Amino acid sequence: MPDIGKMLWPKSVAVVGASSDLHGLRGRILEIMLSHPYAGRIYPVSRSAGEVQGLKAYPSVDALPEPVDLAILIIPAEYIPAELERCGKAGIRAAVILSSGFAEEGGKGAAMQQDIAAIARRYDMAVTGPNTEGFANIEAGLCPTFSPALDRNAGPIRPARALGSGQVSVISQSGGLGFAFFDRARPRNLAFRHIVTTGNEAALEVFDVVDYLLEEGGSDVFLLLLEDVKSPDKFRRTADKALRLGKPIIVGKIGQSEAGSRAVASHTAALAGSQAAYRAMFERYGLIEARDLDEMLDLAVGFLACGDRLPAGKRVGICTSSGGAGVWMADACAAAGLEMPVLDAETRKAIDVHIPSYGTSQNPVDSTAQGVHKMGYATFARLVANSPLIDGVVVVVTARRSAFLEGDLPKLKELRRDSGKPVFMWTYTLPSDRSVEILNEAGYPLFTGAHGCARTMAAMAEYRARRERARAKGTNGPAAAAPHAARDQVRGVLDASAEVLAEWQARPLLALYGIGDDAGTLVRSAKEAEKAARALGRAAALKVQSAQLPHKTEAGAVALAIAADNAAAAYDTVLANARRFAPQAKIDGVLVQPMVKPGREVILGVSRDERWGPLLMLGLGGTLVEAMGDVALSPLPLARDEALALLARLKGAVVFGPWRGMPEADTGALADLMVKLGQFAVDHAEDVAEIDLNPVIVHAKGDGVSVVDALIIKRKTQAARRTAAE
Amino acid sequence: MPDIGKMLWPKSVAVVGASSDLHGLRGRILEIMLSHPYAGRIYPVSRSAGEVQGLKAYPSVDALPEPVDLAILIIPAEYIPAELERCGKAGIRAAVILSSGFAEEGGKGAAMQQDIAAIARRYDMAVTGPNTEGFANIEAGLCPTFSPALDRNAGPIRPARALGSGQVSVISQSGGLGFAFFDRARPRNLAFRHIVTTGNEAALEVFDVVDYLLEEGGSDVFLLLLEDVKSPDKFRRTADKALRLGKPIIVGKIGQSEAGSRAVASHTAALAGSQAAYRAMFERYGLIEARDLDEMLDLAVGFLACGDRLPAGKRVGICTSSGGAGVWMADACAAAGLEMPVLDAETRKAIDVHIPSYGTSQNPVDSTAQGVHKMGYATFARLVANSPLIDGVVVVVTARRSAFLEGDLPKLKELRRDSGKPVFMWTYTLPSDRSVEILNEAGYPLFTGAHGCARTMAAMAEYRARRERARAKGTNGPAAAAPHAARDQVRGVLDASAEVLAEWQARPLLALYGIGDDAGTLVRSAKEAEKAARALGRAAALKVQSAQLPHKTEAGAVALAIAADNAAAAYDTVLANARRFAPQAKIDGVLVQPMVKPGREVILGVSRDERWGPLLMLGLGGTLVEAMGDVALSPLPLARDEALALLARLKGAVVFGPWRGMPEADTGALADLMVKLGQFAVDHAEDVAEIDLNPVIVHAKGDGVSVVDALIIKRKTQAARRTAAE
Repeated sequence: MPDIGKMLWPKSVAVVGASSDLHGLRGRILEIMLSHPYAGRIYPVSRSAGEVQGLKAYPSVDALPEPVDLAILIIPAEYIPAELERCGKAGIRAAVILSSGFAEEGGKGAAMQQDIAAIARRYDMAVTGPNTEGFANIEAGLCPTFSPALDRNAGPIRPARALGSGQVSVISQSGGLGFAFFDRARPRNLAFRHIVTTGNEAALEVFDVVDYLLEEGGSDVFLLLLEDVKSPDKFRRTADKALRLGKPIIVGKIGQSEAGSRAVASHTAALAGSQAAYRAMFERYGLIEARDLDEMLDLAVGFLACGDRLPAGKRVGICTSSGGAGVWMADACAAAGLEMPVLDAETRKAIDVHIPSYGTSQNPVDSTAQGVHKMGYATFARLVANSPLIDGVVVVVTARRSAFLEGDLPKLKELRRDSGKPVFMWTYTLPSDRSVEILNEAGYPLFTGAHGCARTMAAMAEYRARRERARAKGTNGPAAAAPHAARDQVRGVLDASAEVLAEWQARPLLALYGIGDDAGTLVRSAKEAEKAARALGRAAALKVQSAQLPHKTEAGAVALAIAADNAAAAYDTVLANARRFAPQAKIDGVLVQPMVKPGREVILGVSRDERWGPLLMLGLGGTLVEAMGDVALSPLPLARDEALALLARLKGAVVFGPWRGMPEADTGALADLMVKLGQFAVDHAEDVAEIDLNPVIVHAKGDGVSVVDALIIKRKTQAARRTAAE
Repeated sequence: MPDIGKMLWPKSVAVVGASSDLHGLRGRILEIMLSHPYAGRIYPVSRSAGEVQGLKAYPSVDALPEPVDLAILIIPAEYIPAELERCGKAGIRAAVILSSGFAEEGGKGAAMQQDIAAIARRYDMAVTGPNTEGFANIEAGLCPTFSPALDRNAGPIRPARALGSGQVSVISQSGGLGFAFFDRARPRNLAFRHIVTTGNEAALEVFDVVDYLLEEGGSDVFLLLLEDVKSPDKFRRTADKALRLGKPIIVGKIGQSEAGSRAVASHTAALAGSQAAYRAMFERYGLIEARDLDEMLDLAVGFLACGDRLPAGKRVGICTSSGGAGVWMADACAAAGLEMPVLDAETRKAIDVHIPSYGTSQNPVDSTAQGVHKMGYATFARLVANSPLIDGVVVVVTARRSAFLEGDLPKLKELRRDSGKPVFMWTYTLPSDRSVEILNEAGYPLFTGAHGCARTMAAMAEYRARRERARAKGTNGPAAAAPHAARDQVRGVLDASAEVLAEWQARPLLALYGIGDDAGTLVRSAKEAEKAARALGRAAALKVQSAQLPHKTEAGAVALAIAADNAAAAYDTVLANARRFAPQAKIDGVLVQPMVKPGREVILGVSRDERWGPLLMLGLGGTLVEAMGDVALSPLPLARDEALALLARLKGAVVFGPWRGMPEADTGALADLMVKLGQFAVDHAEDVAEIDLNPVIVHAKGDGVSVVDALIIKRKTQAARRTAAE
């Protein structure tokens, strides 16, 4: 791995292609670099000019007076490979390639990008770009970028009085958006450490930079803007490290829509990949996804201001002096999944002495204007934070005028020092600059959007829970691996099977892992069907078995609740239906099984994502669920607590509780099944493309689950894979 | 109806309770009034002072030198009723009651609020409040409020250069939030006309004020903040008028969550009502709902800037010079339900000459920085707006620096003049004040949030469609009313029925309106069951009939696909199950019906909302749908096009198209059924509390629908209702 430190903390920098024309990018970049207090040396490199913007220029990187650490390249694309090679030869170990015209253009550009990658590898150079907007190391005052956000006139790059003591780093594949975070965060007084834009990522990727910054230290919150993740393993390793270190990563994943992913493909030649799979990976590793710049900044503000004061749960107390604004905040909190319990009697008693009769201490606590003027925001918030029923507090303020906050400042500081619970401020009027300063100084996050405020509190609670789950790993890891014998047996059968394993073939394999059972008899005549049904001693289900008939119900190839007397007739009917529906299908026979008791119906499956490998899919209900998208995905393997968390993520999860006259469902048994299926998928990841258990019936607590149908689809034959791998 | 003009446009005003103490609300309000250029006369009324803030004060409203138009009352609650009476006697015909301590406090306060209502009625006075923050007539410079947003130091109340030529009026039940709109809109240069806060609404309600302002003219966009709607009829009449006049109403409805509605109840003693019902009413009348202050302001900015240039459809072209930002906007547009078709060949050809090879003209159109610097935003947007595939344009800009926009200004003005399509600007960097001014001057709405921008475009397209539907009414109204005979027959049967009509009783009634059919035979023995099943000549369904057994399936009281030979046994089984499940249930018999062909399963129902009367409910799928909340509500009656629009609102509406091997569903037949059910519900609104058709099967196009189960629940007996009404 090349040394990213050479790039971010160079002692000297060459700007190749620097110009004195301040209207062009080649002039702008040097102008911006010179306008910030970088302590190292900067050398313009120009073929045509002897002096650039008052600095002596050099004709080539090999003519510099010293071997520099970093080269900034801003010359036409076609000259880049040769120039990078020259840098390598000159001993330069880091480069930023700002030029466009590579993979985003296709054809020759794509080939040149591969050349860049090869050169970077050869010289072990830390290279970002091409097609990047550069970076800014705010700590070092080093800003090799043409982003207007770093213009001399755009204001100081460090806030006079920063929020909290931490720093934020931005790593973005998009140059414009990367620096937009910095730009838009200015009025909020966030202290930034690094802004790094990685462009087409011919060599260094976003997670290489994140990993370096985790090692470097000093970055307390990360803002990431991703179009794609090129190396899944780097993602897993780095995201896991960040989670264990407690450094939250807030991520904007763009290219989620059809049109968006079309544009991503056109402008960076990246494969957008499945959004649901990305989301599953983010959730597993605790990355916090947001969908707009300000939403991401709200999250950064919250984490930075609160540090380790993360809410232990989702119960929020709301302090307000405006009835309407308090109600709106309560609605926003509920929409974000937070809870607002009525406060306990003792807390209410303590509050009631401070508020007039037309206020209320239930929650939201409405002090009325009169009440808050008497006690101040700090005392008000402290009273509510003291409640044992509350994990975090939101104070509704009107920060247009600062005088009142000013008077409250000492007490606000005290509260911040004493309270282990996060206290947020939401202003429904526009805050004055001074109000922002006061609250920053006291260490409180200030929000102007009710939903951004509520979302941040919820995300902080979820992050804490996710982090605690990650730290607890080992005590509650995945189920013990299946015995070698079972694994080998499954592998043997899979090797010998055709591409699709219908239920009668899939069941025995899955049963070896404890997934469902091997119930059922495959019959090939009406007479056999009747005999099998009679042997069950109860109503039977008859299902035509064929690899070419995935939607048996729609084909009429299933008969349910059949008495033995009718089994022969049902056999004939389902077979005739199947033949009419799919005349070409090769039919293996009809499976006769005992009917399963009713319960909640779920779909459980495994499919391979191109990028992330096998993922487990859980959906609620029958075929309609697809249309409604109530599906949760998870990477594999998954531990039992992860399985339970996945269950809770379904929109319709309420059906698992006591529901419509049914007792609570056996979610524990379902979680066990998910863990086992995950183990099966991991053990046979190389062989299996897809597994569908559809439906699985979840019975009442204690009665377990029933796998009602099963299907396995193999990946391409090993021979075909081997060819592809070569 | 009292004259609200006396309140909003008084020639003279008395401030009862005025004080010289600028720290208290009684001093603040006069101070604020005097700091704005109101042309009328202001008289302080004070029991104790002869002079207040430099003005001669009067001891009582009946001692004033002239009969004033408006009295502002800010004295303790207990003195309000007597003072209001004194105003009435003195010939004052409008009053604003700012004092708190009425219905929000309960008990004596609630009684005093009723006194206020009675006095207002007696003197035909226009009264807002109590518990309001007053109002501001920006046009008249009259600001009887203590809101800090109108402070002398808060800046001018009219923007130097307003966006567009229109004006916005705010009407809010919450004082704090009402003035917060005005406060937060300042940097966006919106011109406000009126801000009216209505408080507890003892007399005047929000929609009284809206109605007056519609008649007054000059308010082009309305921002409403509602906790509740007290008079449904005023809402219907006024909202319909606004829609026909093309004056968009943007509404924030607070108190949607449990905690929020608890707080609403506590602070205004209002009944929050069903949120889903509110939403249905808003959709019917084209009110645009939003969930945060800035989202509402984004909508106001869009409507105000674009006037009649509403998008004819949902197809958007995106112009960008930053790849990443264009992708993000595309994602936001897709999330808002907009479409981004690849542009037509002719348009692309015209664009391609302006952009380098590493840009793209598909859509989003990425000109790259180089492309846009050459042609400017106006030319770029015009090229895209010219496409016949596009209804509106979003231009991604970076408005940090204004120089580039400045140069583009003449062309931007030309485009605005020529183009019939809306053109939005979204900046991903923070806009400078000058950039905002330039774009305002040119007449473009500027957004800083990608989602707010996209949401506004989508809402404008939906508003246009809704308005066109409203204007087309009459050509496509509700189905012709049922014949009198059927109506009378149904009424007669309902009068004679018990509270719950099970399927065998409900079916014949509904069939009189063409809703489902009267298929099925009620049997009372196994033998009869077999006979009835045999008569069908096909598989039968057997269902136990009992008013005390609403969930037949869960009880095992239904048997499906039963052959005649098994009907007797099935009869015994379902009856035994029902008795075991509900031993107390009075069983009417077992209904034997022909099995229905499969298809898409929907739930159709009617229920009475306390506030809005009967509403139609449509849901997709079986029992699970409830858990997922995929349900759409509509007021009644509903026309066929409304029925089809309701269908399209289901999240899972995709299942009605060709889906999973099934042909397109007969949505036309479903819409007809919805119209007829709506007619039934309207005709018998006084008698019926609830109707459930669950499920209704929607067959393939041309094959109609089947009502598989039906239930009617009557309202309380007429006698009970009569008693309640007296």
